[in-house]
Amino acid sequence: MDCGLHLFLQVVQGKWKINLLWAIHSGIKRPGKLQRKIPNASRRVLDAQLNQLMEHGLIKKVVYDELPLKVEYELTELGESLIPVIRLTAQWGEDHRNELQHLLKL
Amino acid sequence: MDCGLHLFLQVVQGKWKINLLWAIHSGIKRPGKLQRKIPNASRRVLDAQLNQLMEHGLIKKVVYDELPLKVEYELTELGESLIPVIRLTAQWGEDHRNELQHLLKL
Repeated sequence: MDCGLHLFLQVVQGKWKINLLWAIHSGIKRPGKLQRKIPNASRRVLDAQLNQLMEHGLIKKVVYDELPLKVEYELTELGESLIPVIRLTAQWGEDHRNELQHLLKL
Repeated sequence: MDCGLHLFLQVVQGKWKINLLWAIHSGIKRPGKLQRKIPNASRRVLDAQLNQLMEHGLIKKVVYDELPLKVEYELTELGESLIPVIRLTAQWGEDHRNELQHLLKL
């Protein structure tokens, strides 16, 4: 159990990784659109996080052979397998929304 | 969905928070024992993370009226509600263990 938890944390820790996976799953696949979806992160930081997600096999980069060059990110099979897990975490947040907003002073 | 995900990330992001919640759930409740369970983190960092978890209502500190002073952490009801979510993340790691260990070059 500890080992599974460790592996999960190894690949998703990093400030915007879960947000990026969720955004790509939601159909936001172009680098510029991901940046607009997560405006609090700099492009440099997002690129570094995207590279790590690729290195860890959760997403892949598809470069279309057209001009101007078109780049899109897609979830790999492994990345897709994380979606139900991320959905459950989001559901937990929704289920405790009032309490959490109060505690976080939002 | 985005909002729930945001709330979840707000309370669990921080390098050792999920590990701390899981350890406390597993019965490791004393500050010193938590430190030994997570030796890579300094005591100062763990204390800061424990304080944030308290602030966000996921754990509480119980101080026993004895000498030497005995301090234990416990999950709150809200913290307990996160356990099935953490269990699912760990299960995902277990289910993809070989693949992840290979990708992470462990």
